[in-house]
Amino acid sequence: MSDGKKPKAERRPRAETPRGFRDYFGAEVTARRDMLAAITAVYHRYGFDPLETSAVETVEALGKFLPDVDRPNEGVFGWQENEGEGDQAGGDWLALRYDLTAPLARVAAQYRNDLPTPYRRYAFGPVWRNEKPGPGRFRQFYQCDADTVGAASVAADAEICAMLADALEAAGIERGDYVIKVNNRKVLDGIMECVGLLDPENLDFKAHERGIAVRAIDKIDRLGQSGVEQLLTTGRKDESGDFTSGAGLEYVQALWVTTVLMQRLENNAATIAGLRSHLAKSPRGMEGINELEEIAALLSAQGYGPDRIILDPGVVRGLGYYTGPVYEAELTFEILDEKGRKRQFGSVAGGGRYDDLVKRFTGQAVPATGVSIGVDRLLAALAAKGRGAKDSAGPVVVTVMDRDRMADYMAMVGDLRAAGIRAEVYFGNPKQFGNQLKYADKRASPIAVIQGGDEAAKGTVVLKDLILGSQIAQNATLEEWKDRPAQVEVPRGDLVAAVQKMLGGGK
Amino acid sequence: MSDGKKPKAERRPRAETPRGFRDYFGAEVTARRDMLAAITAVYHRYGFDPLETSAVETVEALGKFLPDVDRPNEGVFGWQENEGEGDQAGGDWLALRYDLTAPLARVAAQYRNDLPTPYRRYAFGPVWRNEKPGPGRFRQFYQCDADTVGAASVAADAEICAMLADALEAAGIERGDYVIKVNNRKVLDGIMECVGLLDPENLDFKAHERGIAVRAIDKIDRLGQSGVEQLLTTGRKDESGDFTSGAGLEYVQALWVTTVLMQRLENNAATIAGLRSHLAKSPRGMEGINELEEIAALLSAQGYGPDRIILDPGVVRGLGYYTGPVYEAELTFEILDEKGRKRQFGSVAGGGRYDDLVKRFTGQAVPATGVSIGVDRLLAALAAKGRGAKDSAGPVVVTVMDRDRMADYMAMVGDLRAAGIRAEVYFGNPKQFGNQLKYADKRASPIAVIQGGDEAAKGTVVLKDLILGSQIAQNATLEEWKDRPAQVEVPRGDLVAAVQKMLGGGK
Repeated sequence: MSDGKKPKAERRPRAETPRGFRDYFGAEVTARRDMLAAITAVYHRYGFDPLETSAVETVEALGKFLPDVDRPNEGVFGWQENEGEGDQAGGDWLALRYDLTAPLARVAAQYRNDLPTPYRRYAFGPVWRNEKPGPGRFRQFYQCDADTVGAASVAADAEICAMLADALEAAGIERGDYVIKVNNRKVLDGIMECVGLLDPENLDFKAHERGIAVRAIDKIDRLGQSGVEQLLTTGRKDESGDFTSGAGLEYVQALWVTTVLMQRLENNAATIAGLRSHLAKSPRGMEGINELEEIAALLSAQGYGPDRIILDPGVVRGLGYYTGPVYEAELTFEILDEKGRKRQFGSVAGGGRYDDLVKRFTGQAVPATGVSIGVDRLLAALAAKGRGAKDSAGPVVVTVMDRDRMADYMAMVGDLRAAGIRAEVYFGNPKQFGNQLKYADKRASPIAVIQGGDEAAKGTVVLKDLILGSQIAQNATLEEWKDRPAQVEVPRGDLVAAVQKMLGGGK
Repeated sequence: MSDGKKPKAERRPRAETPRGFRDYFGAEVTARRDMLAAITAVYHRYGFDPLETSAVETVEALGKFLPDVDRPNEGVFGWQENEGEGDQAGGDWLALRYDLTAPLARVAAQYRNDLPTPYRRYAFGPVWRNEKPGPGRFRQFYQCDADTVGAASVAADAEICAMLADALEAAGIERGDYVIKVNNRKVLDGIMECVGLLDPENLDFKAHERGIAVRAIDKIDRLGQSGVEQLLTTGRKDESGDFTSGAGLEYVQALWVTTVLMQRLENNAATIAGLRSHLAKSPRGMEGINELEEIAALLSAQGYGPDRIILDPGVVRGLGYYTGPVYEAELTFEILDEKGRKRQFGSVAGGGRYDDLVKRFTGQAVPATGVSIGVDRLLAALAAKGRGAKDSAGPVVVTVMDRDRMADYMAMVGDLRAAGIRAEVYFGNPKQFGNQLKYADKRASPIAVIQGGDEAAKGTVVLKDLILGSQIAQNATLEEWKDRPAQVEVPRGDLVAAVQKMLGGGK
């Protein structure tokens, strides 16, 4: 186009969403918007203020904190800025954010002199992961986070857990259909210390073996107790035949570890007692247990019992940046997976305390804790429960019988819209009237408005009740609808009132 | 961290927003959210359905339709997918969307068998431009679009213009503070034809000179009439001394062109008549004028007069992909620029008909028209008018007098929140009470709740009216507030009622 030359048999571009991305239509968009509004209303009531950072950060600011990934920059979509001419002149590396926590840490450092302390912020929006897509697994998805930066007290962690319960219920998950499991990284450290995989004075000691052990524990839901015990000891061969080497513990040690992980007992007091009896030798472990006890007491005082929030020593939350309490919300109902098998829906939100993220920038430790709700997973869960998005009401469609009287038809929709009624003129090719009604059907239109030459001469319009029409098509007996005419002819001046009556009418 | 080695004097990352990007805090976020809700409510009432595509598209799908840029891929943030191992294994090139129209064209082609025809969709979200940032010019900004795909009638264009007027008013721009200017690319083609810069039978003919001329006309607001005339004839040297060569017209031809561009007359009928008299020799020009006349008639029939929507032959809308009617919303009030000079605020929305975008993918022409509102510019305009975002009410802050009674304080905010009141416990270091009140002030908190040991023993709480306090600090006389106590002590059981009374009270 621009150079005026006709291309020789140019290949047409493919009209395809990029691999691992998807498009959202109609009710899918509004359902997410409504859910975000419901969750953020809870965050607001808890005193959190909104923050919106841009999608793009410097790779330097993002750091190597991508959850579950050890190497810097892996898993993000990144590119290098062009500075000056030519490709060799390299600028900053930029990347799409992979979560909302890393940008918050950057903001907390950048504006540390202006923000209140503590800084409570909520944020939502898409995040991007440069990962292999899979069924139901996309490379862009929404998170909705709330974090308290600058609060050292575990009261802040307890509050986040309570708020998470409120937010899930506001989003439409009924009480009993979710549980929030709380643990503490210090408890995990205590376990490692007791089996000789952690020396608090020398973090380098057995760091490799410890990594294997923590990764294994994190996967206990998938691997099962025996799989974890294999990885804690001599190693494990998976279904594909790949061998993962083990952390080198004795079998009795591994058994002891999985026993401690299973100490999610009938109530929080029992769990605390169980953990204390096992981790008495680890000061760090005991510190973590004391924090859990305090969190449980604060939550209990506010009426958040184990039906909503429960201590669970088996929760790890990846290899990430957590330094204290960690929490995870799990949906407890079963759904059918893509192969029709029943399975637990699993985790929809998680978070914890990360006291080192801001320190990266400033050198000063800033205590912080927060939660991230996986909004798209939550929407999928509601859909799996048959409580997914419903399309909003379609527009009243004013049909076009006479192309030259378009101004009249547009005046009709103008009157309807002025009365707050969703309405539109059919703008397709009006020649075949059947197409207009097919269009109205596809739009889930409740009413078609028709004004041909005869009606125009009489100053009337015909209203066709399309909802009634589709009910009759679905074998409702006409008996049931005898008081509701399928079609009425009214004066043009009564259009709005007649449409309002028809929309409000029926049974 | 992961390899356990201590880095030698590792440089700390910079806590900086990437160049050309910015962060939005508090009311900046909610003001945009409210504006998007107001605009999309109008779009919804007009029968448009939401669509949300991902931020990422293949460069192939985006094409070379970036507005105002001739070369493919220039101006976007792009990167190549990794496929397989090593850098030489190249996958698709991906990029961030630079507008919401290109993704719509891709969607219209990809789902053409499933979508209704016409397909009316609205969309909003950030778009990204890899351009040099400047004052008030960012590389990520929000657009809020509505388009009708598959409607050939200019009634669809007229409707978009009317909807744009409604949307601007819904967004808070008062009638009289904006004008929507409508033109037609065919009129511009007619002008080019009349001066010999366009041969409808051979689009290659004088394409280069025509490009110079159209670019010049597009910049008439900045260059003035004489600047455009220089570029239409022999060329122009700008302030920096750079010379731009001209389109080679005779001076009388250039004068004729600028005369036609100025035919925005006192009413639309006069403009139509003026254009007809000038472009009688160009069939394409006359076709464009007829379309403008039809649009003006449809709008006038619905009461959208020249106070809101006016024909203006000077509107070009860039070099982009438009093929028929084009429209642009301009704010008509003056603001002060960064140097304190008065200037018109200028364009905040624009669009037009683009009949070839879907054809790129399918080979079949699909008529389409739509508008894009520059939401961030609109927010800036309201702010410049002193009608910018107001921070929402801060939370009631429950102060911490005794760290061991955190559960009691959290129960207080729990009660307040349950009553729908925004509230929080102070989670900073509670040692210095002054810091707690400073925090409450920074949060714009209306009330501080205080319960020390004495009050706890009595079973009471003290409520401190911080709004009154700040009013008094701003020299309101105490006289004015004599009925409003600055501080009350109430039984703990009356906390919620007393807070509600204080929030509702005052003068």
